[in-house]
Amino acid sequence: MNHEIRPPARYAVIFTSQRTATGHAEYAAMAERMEHLARLMPGFVDVESVRGNDGLGITISYWTDLAAIKAWRDEAEHREAQMRGRSEWYRWYHLRICEIASEVKFSPES
Amino acid sequence: MNHEIRPPARYAVIFTSQRTATGHAEYAAMAERMEHLARLMPGFVDVESVRGNDGLGITISYWTDLAAIKAWRDEAEHREAQMRGRSEWYRWYHLRICEIASEVKFSPES
Repeated sequence: MNHEIRPPARYAVIFTSQRTATGHAEYAAMAERMEHLARLMPGFVDVESVRGNDGLGITISYWTDLAAIKAWRDEAEHREAQMRGRSEWYRWYHLRICEIASEVKFSPES
Repeated sequence: MNHEIRPPARYAVIFTSQRTATGHAEYAAMAERMEHLARLMPGFVDVESVRGNDGLGITISYWTDLAAIKAWRDEAEHREAQMRGRSEWYRWYHLRICEIASEVKFSPES
């Protein structure tokens, strides 16, 4: 996370996935490219991503509005990545689009 | 995840956190105990949790309604864990309560 001024996130897209055992280098390159592209999309606010050693991953992207999420879903390179995800990279995934109702931040240094 | 029949989740609590470098064994025991307790709460649906090697973690719990989330927040042992979290275990955290608007599942085996 960086600390530049950004618009508040009103929506979160929770992407929980289980990787297959194949294509590590290609997958890593795709993931980096997708994060780069997502950051360029209007309405993008932030992304948080963790994958454990067992291949279970959670990526959450934050957006200002639903139209921005739809535009990102339909972005051409992203659509290509989604197709390869289903055919090669993910054993399963679960995607949830959520509206943020409330939030609490804790940071003793700030 | 298991596949017993459960009520649909309407809310997700996204808990993103950065661990401090201390208390690994105690923290692991607490995390296991909290997951056990959460599963006993009325309105609990599921939990997904991943922590990377850099100490960044995302835990998402799923609930049927906001009252269930509030009851879990106020549960006595959980409150104690929250206090120790702020004083010892987390460098920072960000908690977001979200309403699930839509979802998509992918699983070629099912």
